[in-house]
Amino acid sequence: MIAVLAGGVGAARFLRGLMQVVPTNEITAIVNTGDDTVLHGLHISPDLDTVTYTLADAIDPERGWGLSDESWNAMSALNRYATNRPTNSQAAPTWFNLGDKDLATHFYRTARLAEGASLSEISQEIAHAWGLDLRLMPMSNDRVRTMITLQENCEAGKAGSEISFQEYFVKHRHGVATSSVRFDGADVARPEGLDVLNDAQSVIIAPSNPLVSIAPIRALHHVDAVLSARRNSVSAISPIVNGAALKGPADRLMIELGHEPSVVGVARLYSPICGTLIIDHADAHLATAVEDTGMRCIVTDTIMKTAQISAALAHTALGATL
Amino acid sequence: MIAVLAGGVGAARFLRGLMQVVPTNEITAIVNTGDDTVLHGLHISPDLDTVTYTLADAIDPERGWGLSDESWNAMSALNRYATNRPTNSQAAPTWFNLGDKDLATHFYRTARLAEGASLSEISQEIAHAWGLDLRLMPMSNDRVRTMITLQENCEAGKAGSEISFQEYFVKHRHGVATSSVRFDGADVARPEGLDVLNDAQSVIIAPSNPLVSIAPIRALHHVDAVLSARRNSVSAISPIVNGAALKGPADRLMIELGHEPSVVGVARLYSPICGTLIIDHADAHLATAVEDTGMRCIVTDTIMKTAQISAALAHTALGATL
Repeated sequence: MIAVLAGGVGAARFLRGLMQVVPTNEITAIVNTGDDTVLHGLHISPDLDTVTYTLADAIDPERGWGLSDESWNAMSALNRYATNRPTNSQAAPTWFNLGDKDLATHFYRTARLAEGASLSEISQEIAHAWGLDLRLMPMSNDRVRTMITLQENCEAGKAGSEISFQEYFVKHRHGVATSSVRFDGADVARPEGLDVLNDAQSVIIAPSNPLVSIAPIRALHHVDAVLSARRNSVSAISPIVNGAALKGPADRLMIELGHEPSVVGVARLYSPICGTLIIDHADAHLATAVEDTGMRCIVTDTIMKTAQISAALAHTALGATL
Repeated sequence: MIAVLAGGVGAARFLRGLMQVVPTNEITAIVNTGDDTVLHGLHISPDLDTVTYTLADAIDPERGWGLSDESWNAMSALNRYATNRPTNSQAAPTWFNLGDKDLATHFYRTARLAEGASLSEISQEIAHAWGLDLRLMPMSNDRVRTMITLQENCEAGKAGSEISFQEYFVKHRHGVATSSVRFDGADVARPEGLDVLNDAQSVIIAPSNPLVSIAPIRALHHVDAVLSARRNSVSAISPIVNGAALKGPADRLMIELGHEPSVVGVARLYSPICGTLIIDHADAHLATAVEDTGMRCIVTDTIMKTAQISAALAHTALGATL
């Protein structure tokens, strides 16, 4: 069994490559749910869905989230209520786009949760419904919420106010300055997949945001301890290439939260739990600095522009753990 | 103020006529919510929506429910989950069609309920969002569920089993034999609009199903007492014409539940609370039998094929209460 710690888009693309080099039913993805939110009464798990839709080749390739050939009629109709709601109401939020076809997934998840099924069971059922036979599990069946504190004098809210990850990421398009991140509920949430993290032949940390995609998983009890105990068979792919995130706010968050926005900054975060960091050719000059954090460093192509590159990257990540 | 006890389609058409003969802001519709259901985690109020959409000229005229120019992409996408769900799960029900645009209404209602707003407030907000200035209220802000017991040996379930109204009406297309109806929660639910029923210049019982649209309202505390105390200024329009319901299962239900499927059967149900029954020309020969129940009887056109007929019917119903 191969275990992968996963966020959204980058992890999904990496997993697609991994599926080409090992049998799918030998892969377990443990996915961040700190981004989960409830909108319109529906339970939404953005990272789980991005992984599922990507691996099922159903993702919209342009947006990187949601389904291809999507329609937006429910969202359009919501404007009527958004513009007429009472001033003290947040109902009918229109800043989080939900495609009509995508809604079916949230309907199913919400109904199954109401029936008493766990998010783990449901995530597996959804993956199966899309024809996938990897193990796909949330990092926890308990509620963990990634909360972002804004810097003072930020235009998005009053000074120092705390907002949910989706408000930060989608509503404000991660264009606001942050001062801290915390994972509400992580202290009491029970982690899923600890046995897999312990028993898997290899553990790979996908090229996801270390501070808001991987950190929520690491914030759960025992996860860092299990990984550090098997550190030599854990590898990670840096989501930072040439000082910048390929997608999303990883670089900006690294700076704002006091980390170097480079593969070296990533290495310092992962060094306690991970033996090998895989970095892009663009960062080859930083390989020694990565090794100075106590990690092995592998330089290769990490920008997954093609299925071939994704597969080669997965092969490299696997090889690093053997 | 004019108060109207209302179910779905028939009531909506009648209210559209009434809006032509009295100022809209003088109309209060008290609407059945025994049909309300929760699907996919969304709170659905079919009769309230049918009234709103009809009065806003947004209803699909062919179906009589839902919005015109509707798409069904969310429902179509739900099939994937319906066909893959565990055998013990009812998630992803596909028997209750929800159009994509219509979903926005359920999203708004569900989110506002979660914010602590009452169904009365929300119904009024939805009506305003559609440009309507009549008072539109649910019969109660508390949960009342119309439950249908099936006759023995019925193919739809095991003998004598009880199902919700929507299962009966939509899932089984009211094609199964019933033995009784009850309104779960009506004994503890607080009625809305009792003051209006007491103070209104006129009360009109719309041409809705007496046993499953009007009866839930009447099952609430004090409603029948308030109406019987002002019986002479209450009029009703028979939903049964020539022994048949214009739409829905009223005729069949009347027979199965022990009532005569005619205007006389309707008169016997309404006689305690209502001074006048308005029947169609097709039933003119039964006017004396209606009067024998202790009601006045007015014979006119009751089939609301045109806006003119609806308006004339509303005028007649109003006149009967003065």
